[in-house]
Amino acid sequence: MVRNRRRMPPRRCTASMGSSNGSESDASDLVMRCLSCEEEYDMDDSGTCRECYQEANEAEEELRREIEELKSKVSFLTLPYPNLNASTADIILVPVDDSDAVPIPAHKHLLVSRSPVFKAMLENDMAERRSGTIKISDISYDTLSAFVNYLYTAEASLDNELACNLLVLGEKYQVKHLKTYCEKYLIAKMNWNKAISNYAFAYQYNCKQLRSASLAVILDNMDLLTQNECYAELVDTNPRLVVEIYETYIGKQLNTAGAF
Amino acid sequence: MVRNRRRMPPRRCTASMGSSNGSESDASDLVMRCLSCEEEYDMDDSGTCRECYQEANEAEEELRREIEELKSKVSFLTLPYPNLNASTADIILVPVDDSDAVPIPAHKHLLVSRSPVFKAMLENDMAERRSGTIKISDISYDTLSAFVNYLYTAEASLDNELACNLLVLGEKYQVKHLKTYCEKYLIAKMNWNKAISNYAFAYQYNCKQLRSASLAVILDNMDLLTQNECYAELVDTNPRLVVEIYETYIGKQLNTAGAF
Repeated sequence: MVRNRRRMPPRRCTASMGSSNGSESDASDLVMRCLSCEEEYDMDDSGTCRECYQEANEAEEELRREIEELKSKVSFLTLPYPNLNASTADIILVPVDDSDAVPIPAHKHLLVSRSPVFKAMLENDMAERRSGTIKISDISYDTLSAFVNYLYTAEASLDNELACNLLVLGEKYQVKHLKTYCEKYLIAKMNWNKAISNYAFAYQYNCKQLRSASLAVILDNMDLLTQNECYAELVDTNPRLVVEIYETYIGKQLNTAGAF
Repeated sequence: MVRNRRRMPPRRCTASMGSSNGSESDASDLVMRCLSCEEEYDMDDSGTCRECYQEANEAEEELRREIEELKSKVSFLTLPYPNLNASTADIILVPVDDSDAVPIPAHKHLLVSRSPVFKAMLENDMAERRSGTIKISDISYDTLSAFVNYLYTAEASLDNELACNLLVLGEKYQVKHLKTYCEKYLIAKMNWNKAISNYAFAYQYNCKQLRSASLAVILDNMDLLTQNECYAELVDTNPRLVVEIYETYIGKQLNTAGAF
């Protein structure tokens, strides 16, 4: 918890009466020095006792140790991307709609452990198990490659498009961790321009958190709603969702009015 | 940082002069209420200002979020124990000195990613690669099984014996994460009865932290040294290590004497 808003010579917490003018002192004249930022403060701005400060420091150190251990565990458990180790691969994934694509090698046991859909596919007597090939439609080589890489490493270099594409794959193959990872990215990058498209996307792929984050941004900008370039499209493609926006907005207005 | 040594009704930090007897007040009469434990303290026991307390709370929440994310990542990256998924295994490990043992199935690409020794074995044209079998001597089925399990999950249910056995395998196959894991366990369970054997063990398997932790316990109990049941054995098997204990002890004594 050691922060330094302004560097001061460290010293033990001290308190002094500000009564240099000889007048009678009171509580507001007293100043103490914060053990964390080392700045002076008066009693109205007091925070914790010394013991709690020390305990909080120890607790923080303990949390940081736990983080280091977990990071080391993640690093140990992360597997290299299969391209690096293709000689042991026992399955290939093919993005059938990308004519330039080369097949992507992988390991059955890993796919099985990461996705219940791959598990059903590869542990039962299905075409994919017999042929050793999983054909995936409607995606590019780059997206599939990022998807497989994520299954090995739990990492991806996202932009908005890749986050959406991987979230779709996360939903399709029930890779919950990936779906949450992409959803968090989209929420972090949310703004008014993306709010309506994110709202429709979240509805389609069953992302509760993204949906409520988008709705919150939309409700904060109701005066701009009809001018948003995605609005007309949403009215065409999914008018029920537009109705839901208006219903929520009116419901909130009535609630707020009822509170006064 | 919210702890409660004793539950008190929460209220805003207050300060009051303890001058109920009418005498003149001074700083030591002033009491404040800690925002964390909610107990009263006087100025000599003051810790931090309010702003630092709030910042520390936010920082702690941030660390806890990071821990949750890392735990979820660890859970995603952890692979099931290969016995559960033996149909895709492409290598077996055999504890050759355990006559009752059954072979343990595993996946080459995983062994290769966890251990540079397995990597060399399985990526070059060595007997293990050709036969699909890795023979391991001098260990029991249970130890080998725990070892393979660790390579998939980064977890083991340790006792003292298993920690030593797995540390030996961690050293032999250069699985640094496992070695550190076992070393931490042995340090946490250290006591006087184990100190000498741990010291000799740490020397043999090149464990710096375990070695210095054992030595610290030995130096704190020099009056009991020759009575420890492992002492005579260490004098027989590795007298140089015993010499090192005495040298360190005398060196510390001279340093302490020199300081006065």
